[in-house]
Amino acid sequence: MTTKPKFAVIGGGSWATAITKMLCVNLNEVAWYMRNEDAVNHIKTYKHNPNYLTGVQFDTTKLRLTTNINEAIAYADYIIFAIPSAFLSNELEKMTESLDGKIIFSAIKGIVPETSLIVGEHFNKTYNIPFDNIGVITGPCHAEEVALERLSYLTIACGDAKKAKIVANCLSGHFIKAKISDDIIGTEYAAMLKNIYAIAAGIAHGLGYGDNFQSVLMSNGIREMKKFIKKVHKMKRNINDSAYLGDLLVTGYSVFSRNRMFGNMIGKGYTVKSAQMEMSMVAEGYYATKSAWKLNQNYKAKTPIINAVYEILYEGKNAKKVFEKLTDKLD
Amino acid sequence: MTTKPKFAVIGGGSWATAITKMLCVNLNEVAWYMRNEDAVNHIKTYKHNPNYLTGVQFDTTKLRLTTNINEAIAYADYIIFAIPSAFLSNELEKMTESLDGKIIFSAIKGIVPETSLIVGEHFNKTYNIPFDNIGVITGPCHAEEVALERLSYLTIACGDAKKAKIVANCLSGHFIKAKISDDIIGTEYAAMLKNIYAIAAGIAHGLGYGDNFQSVLMSNGIREMKKFIKKVHKMKRNINDSAYLGDLLVTGYSVFSRNRMFGNMIGKGYTVKSAQMEMSMVAEGYYATKSAWKLNQNYKAKTPIINAVYEILYEGKNAKKVFEKLTDKLD
Repeated sequence: MTTKPKFAVIGGGSWATAITKMLCVNLNEVAWYMRNEDAVNHIKTYKHNPNYLTGVQFDTTKLRLTTNINEAIAYADYIIFAIPSAFLSNELEKMTESLDGKIIFSAIKGIVPETSLIVGEHFNKTYNIPFDNIGVITGPCHAEEVALERLSYLTIACGDAKKAKIVANCLSGHFIKAKISDDIIGTEYAAMLKNIYAIAAGIAHGLGYGDNFQSVLMSNGIREMKKFIKKVHKMKRNINDSAYLGDLLVTGYSVFSRNRMFGNMIGKGYTVKSAQMEMSMVAEGYYATKSAWKLNQNYKAKTPIINAVYEILYEGKNAKKVFEKLTDKLD
Repeated sequence: MTTKPKFAVIGGGSWATAITKMLCVNLNEVAWYMRNEDAVNHIKTYKHNPNYLTGVQFDTTKLRLTTNINEAIAYADYIIFAIPSAFLSNELEKMTESLDGKIIFSAIKGIVPETSLIVGEHFNKTYNIPFDNIGVITGPCHAEEVALERLSYLTIACGDAKKAKIVANCLSGHFIKAKISDDIIGTEYAAMLKNIYAIAAGIAHGLGYGDNFQSVLMSNGIREMKKFIKKVHKMKRNINDSAYLGDLLVTGYSVFSRNRMFGNMIGKGYTVKSAQMEMSMVAEGYYATKSAWKLNQNYKAKTPIINAVYEILYEGKNAKKVFEKLTDKLD
């Protein structure tokens, strides 16, 4: 790269921290926005995020840290959003800088609750960003393992392959391999749907189902995901690629996944409200379940697992009974 | 069922014990052969297998226990073999009873080392059993979870759907759901190949790769398995069905899998010999690796994971270096 592209990362959480770490391998300058002023000051002084991936040391001479989202946006050509989808609208309201000509990459993996759209569609519909300037960064990738520099694979999806390649190059390094894809809709839906299956895996575990059932659930989950995504956006894709199946597995088998943990509490008998209070956060998959279920009222894909999770989370049905019925629909 | 079919289970290990338990739910009589006379006497006296799944209590009035394989074969219409593939030839040598007209189901999941054939093919070629009288019982199913009556799904494959249904009915119960399939070759190859991927997962873990990489390995593994099986026996199958993907996952993610454990020791620096001595057993996947690799010299499917495991186990190559190269071939 002769003239290096300018990147901004929006968010102060673990995934934003991991992405900033990746970018710093290849770039001399990265803009990094987060709301929390204390965190920014801490990073400037101690060279690590005080709240997430605290073991990651930054060369702070490379970081343009700011608590002003407009500064970050004004600086960058490529803007990577890595904040919980529930906070996206709130952050975007602060925006006075135009997004015209900017290239927006979502590393969010969720549904924007206000519009029930995946992030790419939200930017397209709400901000008129053309799909050629919209992309997705997707795993399978726990941020914690990026912090430890354990080899991880990313898929960078964009309608414009050149832009996907630039982002892939800027994220790649000795612990990151990034491939590109043209399936921005499918990869983003997969990233969102997998959280529902992770909730299902958690519920099953909480109810006392074992590893044999978990493998059947994941096997049915990927078939269901394939049908659902095909209805949303039909194109040639291999659902067993890492961005779909790999991402499902890394979340569905992780005991650290917030979604799986949330499901586990539901399976053990917590109410939705008490599980959310106990976790002091809302698992992305909670919103995803409602959105996917609503969307599927039109698409009518066969989605017994999503339906089961929806009935438990939104219709107050008994998890044990719902799963007993579900087991007859799996094979 | 008006006249109940007569079943014999061949083997005294955990999987044979689990299958006998399943059959006892539906049948009033099951023949059960094992070599070990002490074990037979223990079961007769204490109503449980002294060596495997010791928590499973049997109604011994239902069991026709024997240390004479010919007695079991003479009695049964359906004979389920559930012994390690390495011991199969040895057991079959004791056989004086004819297998003519008998229906043979393999629950073995491995390659017969002497002939390099999967068990179904071995019975077909060595004993002239027609494929309509040959079937496969496959998971995803850890025997230990059957002992705990945790819900598990089986796939019963046979060229003759009627026979598959009879076996499925006799195995099904409140903790077992069994579906049928006509893919005897594919399901048996999947059951064998998954052990190679479990060794690969173990090696990766032993080398220090994390969960992100494991999910990429499994995602590439199932794509590789699909290509391999398609070369061996082309037919319409969904590789994401439980018998293929589910079985891969339950083994590849299990810390109890002998194959994964074996791979883990190799990854940590044990030699093949010392790992085998330490485990005091040979993991099925060790033979499967050689057979699959050899077979693939003709088929020429793209199998970078199988090749990597082969190079480490049979060509003495350095696991760390082989996996570094492998990571470039995955995506």
